[in-house]
Amino acid sequence: MGKSANSEIQKGCPCLARDVLDRIGDRWTVLLVLTMGDHEVQRFTELRRRVTGISQRMLTVTLRDLERDGFVTRTVKPVIPPHVEYRLTPLGNALLENVRSLVKWANGHQEAVRRAREAYDTRLAVKETG
Amino acid sequence: MGKSANSEIQKGCPCLARDVLDRIGDRWTVLLVLTMGDHEVQRFTELRRRVTGISQRMLTVTLRDLERDGFVTRTVKPVIPPHVEYRLTPLGNALLENVRSLVKWANGHQEAVRRAREAYDTRLAVKETG
Repeated sequence: MGKSANSEIQKGCPCLARDVLDRIGDRWTVLLVLTMGDHEVQRFTELRRRVTGISQRMLTVTLRDLERDGFVTRTVKPVIPPHVEYRLTPLGNALLENVRSLVKWANGHQEAVRRAREAYDTRLAVKETG
Repeated sequence: MGKSANSEIQKGCPCLARDVLDRIGDRWTVLLVLTMGDHEVQRFTELRRRVTGISQRMLTVTLRDLERDGFVTRTVKPVIPPHVEYRLTPLGNALLENVRSLVKWANGHQEAVRRAREAYDTRLAVKETG
């Protein structure tokens, strides 16, 4: 793939692949998609509680973006009081799998990255004081 | 993995997995890593030319971050005039594989995302004018 994927991205907008990568680089999207993977259907208030630290506004915005891109469905339940349910679509589940394997890979290489940083910073310190 | 990966990320710093995801969310990192995958060894000027649109400063910063994390090695060649060569480390090649498969997945789902957006925007327009 190499060159062609690269040049496809370089050609710039409208580049949806870039949008998908941006999502994966977004902290709240990753947390939210991982959380949605834990239960098939979740209400707004449940997601709010489970995604530690997310604000109501940020949850609303992130869910709306995910819904617009077809990763999440939003269903308003006509009960009293009404409530809204969210679930991952098949496309959302495919995104979840990607996010999971990436997080797994990243977790598995934390130690290598930590060691590389230490070595780099030590070399730099030696250069600066030497 | 689900819950445990999620809670690991939620615990926050020092969370290197988060840093790796941030890199993948960074446009220049993705372009640079893909470009570095095309040739084993590349000079700064070659990378500058091949990563369309990147500034000298942004290339310097991105390369330095990748070097510090152990994804890239930088070698100063003692020739006249001196030049600097960059190559991916084995860890960098593993990152490249992840980036490639993600870009491939994203490219493969562009059309689904585009259709979802169109449908969403149409529903919204109907709701607003209806």
